[in-house]
Amino acid sequence: MLYYEDIVLNNPIESRSVTLSKEDIIDFATEWDPQPFHTDEEAAKQWPLGLTASGLHTISWACRLSFDLVDEPTAVVAGLGWDELRLPKPVVPGDSIRVRCYVCEKRESASKPDMGVIRNKVEVWNQNDEVVLHFMISTLVLKKPQD
Amino acid sequence: MLYYEDIVLNNPIESRSVTLSKEDIIDFATEWDPQPFHTDEEAAKQWPLGLTASGLHTISWACRLSFDLVDEPTAVVAGLGWDELRLPKPVVPGDSIRVRCYVCEKRESASKPDMGVIRNKVEVWNQNDEVVLHFMISTLVLKKPQD
Repeated sequence: MLYYEDIVLNNPIESRSVTLSKEDIIDFATEWDPQPFHTDEEAAKQWPLGLTASGLHTISWACRLSFDLVDEPTAVVAGLGWDELRLPKPVVPGDSIRVRCYVCEKRESASKPDMGVIRNKVEVWNQNDEVVLHFMISTLVLKKPQD
Repeated sequence: MLYYEDIVLNNPIESRSVTLSKEDIIDFATEWDPQPFHTDEEAAKQWPLGLTASGLHTISWACRLSFDLVDEPTAVVAGLGWDELRLPKPVVPGDSIRVRCYVCEKRESASKPDMGVIRNKVEVWNQNDEVVLHFMISTLVLKKPQD
């Protein structure tokens, strides 16, 4: 188990990549974000970008690929929040995306002496080495138990 | 179709509510965020909050319930980003959650004269009238076509 003291700053790791098919994009969006430019190839032709993946789909893959990256679990107490989430490029059918993430900040909790707050920067890159999504995620983690 | 000019500020609307069962929480997390405190009731007993829904699960419901609220589609060009996403309370099995959202800001695009940017505040409330999630979502929308 990784505790607050074990967390290393600015040490980027990169995930495997996944390819999103048209069917993947439509299936996910049909359940969670059924806007026509995510679910209907014909209707999407009327939109400037055509059929694109739901931002939530890319975000979900960011979470899943980040999870898969971790060899040893962190002593997480709770997720606190996300900041500055941006979607600078659309994800379209056939794109292969991968995650790059690193801890960009750590600080002791002001109110809880046995905990700290870590901030992860999460980036999703496509096969053309363009960033399609990035955000910061803040997590409350335990410090090492005292003997 | 609702264009930029049609968007009304500060007019909150509230969605139906959905109840998340233990199975719903585990199934979603198994696919997208398989941390033990989201997927394994026994293992979760070792965590301060016990078995909780993945934040991503609550976020996904926020998107879906927001979508279902809309009678008339908005002329969306692209989602730009999310800001200040916070998870002030955990969602646990049996909780019923609903969305309240409103447009809190609209402005003309500086670079695209035929578009504007709208900012929605999205809140998710539980059955005890506590906010469990809130965030801002910025979207690029078309202005009314000129005749």
